[in-house]
Amino acid sequence: MKIDEKTDVNEKYFHNISSRERAIFEGAISMGALFHQFIGAPVSLKNAELLEKSIQSSLELQPCIKRVEVKISPDKLSEMNTEFDYVSLSGDMLDVRIYSEFDGKLALIRMEYLEDLRYPLMYVERIDE
Amino acid sequence: MKIDEKTDVNEKYFHNISSRERAIFEGAISMGALFHQFIGAPVSLKNAELLEKSIQSSLELQPCIKRVEVKISPDKLSEMNTEFDYVSLSGDMLDVRIYSEFDGKLALIRMEYLEDLRYPLMYVERIDE
Amino acid sequence: MKIDEKTDVNEKYFHNISSRERAIFEGAISMGALFHQFIGAPVSLKNAELLEKSIQSSLELQPCIKRVEVKISPDKLSEMNTEFDYVSLSGDMLDVRIYSEFDGKLALIRMEYLEDLRYPLMYVERIDE
Amino acid sequence: MKIDEKTDVNEKYFHNISSRERAIFEGAISMGALFHQFIGAPVSLKNAELLEKSIQSSLELQPCIKRVEVKISPDKLSEMNTEFDYVSLSGDMLDVRIYSEFDGKLALIRMEYLEDLRYPLMYVERIDE
Repeated sequence: MKIDEKTDVNEKYFHNISSRERAIFEGAISMGALFHQFIGAPVSLKNAELLEKSIQSSLELQPCIKRVEVKISPDKLSEMNTEFDYVSLSGDMLDVRIYSEFDGKLALIRMEYLEDLRYPLMYVERIDE
Repeated sequence: MKIDEKTDVNEKYFHNISSRERAIFEGAISMGALFHQFIGAPVSLKNAELLEKSIQSSLELQPCIKRVEVKISPDKLSEMNTEFDYVSLSGDMLDVRIYSEFDGKLALIRMEYLEDLRYPLMYVERIDE
Repeated sequence: MKIDEKTDVNEKYFHNISSRERAIFEGAISMGALFHQFIGAPVSLKNAELLEKSIQSSLELQPCIKRVEVKISPDKLSEMNTEFDYVSLSGDMLDVRIYSEFDGKLALIRMEYLEDLRYPLMYVERIDE
Repeated sequence: MKIDEKTDVNEKYFHNISSRERAIFEGAISMGALFHQFIGAPVSLKNAELLEKSIQSSLELQPCIKRVEVKISPDKLSEMNTEFDYVSLSGDMLDVRIYSEFDGKLALIRMEYLEDLRYPLMYVERIDE
């Protein structure tokens, strides 16, 4: 049983926020987790797809997380990869979508690297009313 | 200037959520970040306080984060520390409060280890109406 | 080209150690890297094999690393997994072998959790004369 | 008692390598650990010194590690820090020295970012005969 299905935990710890807020909350935790768990991992064109799948499978275990889509930019990998065979995974290579849901309310949390801000921005891309 | 004060970013990326939701969102990101960045770090009674301060200072840099309080349990450190001088930081040693605010709405995000669930639960401990 | 094949780097930075020492050096770096990169990742019986493969593929990119074998204990996962669907990857679940080679000298670096020491010990399991 | 002073562990697991090799081994583990544990941590000019101290205190707990010196480049922080108040710690900001010793043999392990290779190279800077 996943924690988001445990009625007692929900009643005791989450009665003070709405279903929409809960979806945002859990999706945001998972996005922060994803970034700080996997940043620094050795990556190249050879293992990028396997790493994407593994990151997805890992974060999909967390409460309320329905689906995770991770894209590691092959262009960035090629570009940075001139001298050696691999680099450390960094925020500017990542594009991530996390679909989080609680009690029928779906939130889509996005992380994308904004070149003009030089910052991997995390925001709520879509949210149920 | 912190990102949460950048009017253009807020208007473009965060117009679809309320101030309360934004406070929850940013606090939750930082809690997920904290856990997955620092879990595994070598720690003992000797450096626990320094590590707490350093974790706090790091997370307080993130958008909307006003204050972070990290407590690494000295009891857990003593108990696990019998054979050697240190252990890897793990979720059952941590008690964390993150105060996150956006446009006057304050959220207090908490992580505490629940012995009966054997799980470091993250939840919203207090939230402005 | 991998860094361990770059003659100029080897001559400039590694002339002061033997081939055997180089194999130990690179294998040890990768073992420390593996532990501290992936500890904390959400894992369950569902994604353990994918995570193993992904960790292997990541570390095999590093200099001198010929093969990496990662085993996440299914027993530990079952045992810790009673309340929820997943746990954070920790040192006591891991058994790892890293095969590192430089100029014909092979080192096998091992990490295994020693129950009596309550410690994930890293050591050189085999080394060419 | 530190693990490197435990005679039985040393005899059982480390009899097959020399004291010099042991010093290299333990220093290399700690360098790999340091990089992959702390890369990604939020950092700015405000908390760089505290983070340096905390990283040092953490790695100095590990077997055979006598001293750790971490320098986070203030120039890199200033340069990358134009848009926001902080960045994620990355390999190109770090200069690290780890002094590792076993049974009188001292190894100095270094990590420095080599601009021409665009790579944070780890090598043995000094080693006792």
